Amino acid sequence: MAVGGVTGSGPGSPLGLHRVLAPAGVLPQAAWQLDPRPALWPDEVRVAVERLNLDAASFRQLREATGGAAADMRAQVGQIVAERGKMQNPVTGSGGMLTGVVEEAGPESPLGLAPGDRIATLVSLSLTPLVITDGLAGWDGRSEQVPCRGHAILFGRSIATVLPADLPGPLALAVLDVAGAPALTSRVVSQARGGPVVAVIGAGGKSGSLAAAAAREAGAGRVIGVVPAGAEAATLRASGLADEVVIADARDPVALAAAVRGAGGPAAVTVVCVDVPGCEGGAVLATADGGTVIFFSMATSFTAAALGAEGVAADVTMLIGNGYVPGHARLALDLVRRQPGVRGIFEARVSEETRGHRPGLEEK
Amino acid sequence: MAVGGVTGSGPGSPLGLHRVLAPAGVLPQAAWQLDPRPALWPDEVRVAVERLNLDAASFRQLREATGGAAADMRAQVGQIVAERGKMQNPVTGSGGMLTGVVEEAGPESPLGLAPGDRIATLVSLSLTPLVITDGLAGWDGRSEQVPCRGHAILFGRSIATVLPADLPGPLALAVLDVAGAPALTSRVVSQARGGPVVAVIGAGGKSGSLAAAAAREAGAGRVIGVVPAGAEAATLRASGLADEVVIADARDPVALAAAVRGAGGPAAVTVVCVDVPGCEGGAVLATADGGTVIFFSMATSFTAAALGAEGVAADVTMLIGNGYVPGHARLALDLVRRQPGVRGIFEARVSEETRGHRPGLEEK
Repeated sequence: MAVGGVTGSGPGSPLGLHRVLAPAGVLPQAAWQLDPRPALWPDEVRVAVERLNLDAASFRQLREATGGAAADMRAQVGQIVAERGKMQNPVTGSGGMLTGVVEEAGPESPLGLAPGDRIATLVSLSLTPLVITDGLAGWDGRSEQVPCRGHAILFGRSIATVLPADLPGPLALAVLDVAGAPALTSRVVSQARGGPVVAVIGAGGKSGSLAAAAAREAGAGRVIGVVPAGAEAATLRASGLADEVVIADARDPVALAAAVRGAGGPAAVTVVCVDVPGCEGGAVLATADGGTVIFFSMATSFTAAALGAEGVAADVTMLIGNGYVPGHARLALDLVRRQPGVRGIFEARVSEETRGHRPGLEEK
Repeated sequence: MAVGGVTGSGPGSPLGLHRVLAPAGVLPQAAWQLDPRPALWPDEVRVAVERLNLDAASFRQLREATGGAAADMRAQVGQIVAERGKMQNPVTGSGGMLTGVVEEAGPESPLGLAPGDRIATLVSLSLTPLVITDGLAGWDGRSEQVPCRGHAILFGRSIATVLPADLPGPLALAVLDVAGAPALTSRVVSQARGGPVVAVIGAGGKSGSLAAAAAREAGAGRVIGVVPAGAEAATLRASGLADEVVIADARDPVALAAAVRGAGGPAAVTVVCVDVPGCEGGAVLATADGGTVIFFSMATSFTAAALGAEGVAADVTMLIGNGYVPGHARLALDLVRRQPGVRGIFEARVSEETRGHRPGLEEK
C-alpha cells in the first residue's frame, strides 16, 4: 500500500475517538460508523487482515437471517463492514476478532508490534476499523472463521498478541477469542472459599471447556459440566474436565437447576457459556444463595438477569463477563498446552468449523 | 370478589410456573403471557391493587412511543396487561412494582401476610399476574405512579413488604422501588478496602441519592455525585449526600471520565443510576483498574458493557444490579428516615411525579 508513513490530521486518542464518524462523541464500540482509512495516526497500527473470527452469537444471527447461503452471508457481512467501517452485527451488537500481519506501526504506538508480526486482536471487531478488499471470496459462509483480505486499525489502547509459534493458527485464534472466560472464572473461583462447586453451562464448547479447566486449576471442589445432548456429554466425560456431566436444556430453568442440584449443586459459581437467549433464569436458579453467576454469552439480556434474580428472591452476584482480564491470553493458551482434554475439544471444534459443521447450543 | 377460597387445580410452584401460559417451561419473568385468574393456588396471595409504579425506563419508552397523551398511555398499558397478564413493557422488558391491600392469602403461603395488610410488592411487575378493572381511569399518564383498580397475584417465593406506618405511601413506594440499589452499593463498598472513592452517576435521582447515602454509611472515603445539569447540582450539593458534585452527560464517556477524575477519581466503585442507554463506556472509563461498576439502570446493554470494557482494556468488575438483596427494604427505608438529604430528594421527586413533571436524565 502506498499509504505507509502518511498520518492522520490532528491529535489522535488512544481510545480511537478520532475514528468515530457517527454519532459524535461516543466510543468506537458504541459508534454506528467508524473511519477505516488506512493512513495512520501516530499511535496506531495497521494490520493486513488474513482471517476474521465472527462472534458466535453474530454468526448464528447472520446464518438465521440469510438462510446461510454463501453468497448471502458474504453480501451481508460485506454490507455491514462497508456501511459501518467495522464488523459489528447491528442485531447482536457483537463482533469477533481477527488475525493478520502488521503492515505498519505508527511511531508512537505503545503496542510493541513491528511490521511482519503475525498477530491476533484481543479487542472486539465491534470497535476495530476494518476494510474488506476481496469480497470475502474465500469464505463459504459455513464457518465463523472467515478468510479475508483487507486492513484493520489498532488504537493505542487496543490489545493484540503475537500468535504463538507452537500452536496452529486456527487453534490459537479460537482459544484467544474466548480467553476472557477462563481468566475471569479463575479469578472468581480462587476468591471463593473452601473448594467451591462450579457449574459450567455449555462445558462442552470452547469458552466452557476453558472455563471448566480454569475452575479446577483455581481450586474448585467439584466441576459440574452441563451440556445439551448425549453425544457431547460423552465427549466431555472423555475429556476429564468435569467431575460430573449432566444433560439439560439451559433455557429450561427448572430442568437446569434440577440437573445441577442432582450433580452436587447448587453451585457457588455458575459460568454461562451458551450463546442462545433465555439462559438467565436457569443460571440464577442453579446457583446457591450468596453465590456468583458469570455471564459470558453475548446473548445475555441485562434486564432478564436483573429482574429474573429479583423475581425469585435470589441473593446472587451477577457478573458481566469482561473480555479483558490481565494475562488472559497467556492463561488460555497455557491451559490448552497443559490440558489435553481442552486441546482435544478445541481441535474437534476447529475441525468442525473448518468443515462447516455447526454444533448446537453449546457452541461459543 | 366471589373467588375467595377457590384454588387452582394441580400442584403449584413457588416460582409461579403454573401461571405461565406461553411459552411453556419458562419462568414467569421470561414468559410472554401469564394466567392472572383470581382463584388462588394454595401458596399464593391475591392483592387488591391500589397503585402501579412503572419502572422509569418503561415509563419513558411509553411516553416517547405514545406522545404522552393520557388516553394513549392508558390504552397502551391496558393493552399490554390484557394481552400479557402482567405489566411488562415489551420494548424495555421491565415492569415496576405495585401497592395494594391483601384480599386473600392461600393456606400454604409462606409470606406471612393477612387480609387487610397494605403492602408493596418487591418483585417486578414483569412477573406478577395482573388484571386491571378500571381502565386506569384515575391516571393522567403524566406520572409513573398509576392509580389502578384490579388484582395481582403473589407466588410462594415472591417478596412483599407491609408498608411502613411512619412514611407517606407514595414516598415509601418510591423508596422500595429502588431498594436494591443502596443495598448492593453498601455491600460492594463495605467489601472494598481503605475508604474507596465512589462515583454515583445520577446521584440526584432516587436510586442515586440512596446509593450515595449508602456508600457513605458503608465507609466510602469520598462520594462523587454526577448529575446532568446545574439545577440538580445545586439540589444535590444542598443535600450533603456527596463530597463532590460534578456536571457531566453520562452518555459522553470522555466527558464523564474527565469529570470524575477531576473530582478525585477514578472511582474504585462506580454506580450507574441513570435510565438512558449509552452510559456503559463512560462508567467503565471513570473506574480505576481493579474497580467495580454496578449497573442499576434497566437501560444497560449487556453487550455494550462487556465489549466496551474489553475495548478499552479495562480490568473492571461489572455487576448486574440485582434488585434483591436480603434486608434491602429495611435498609432503604432507614436511610430515608435517618438522612434528611435523601428524604428531601425523594419528597421533591414524588411531588414532581404527582404533578406530572418529569425531570431528565437522572431520574430513576
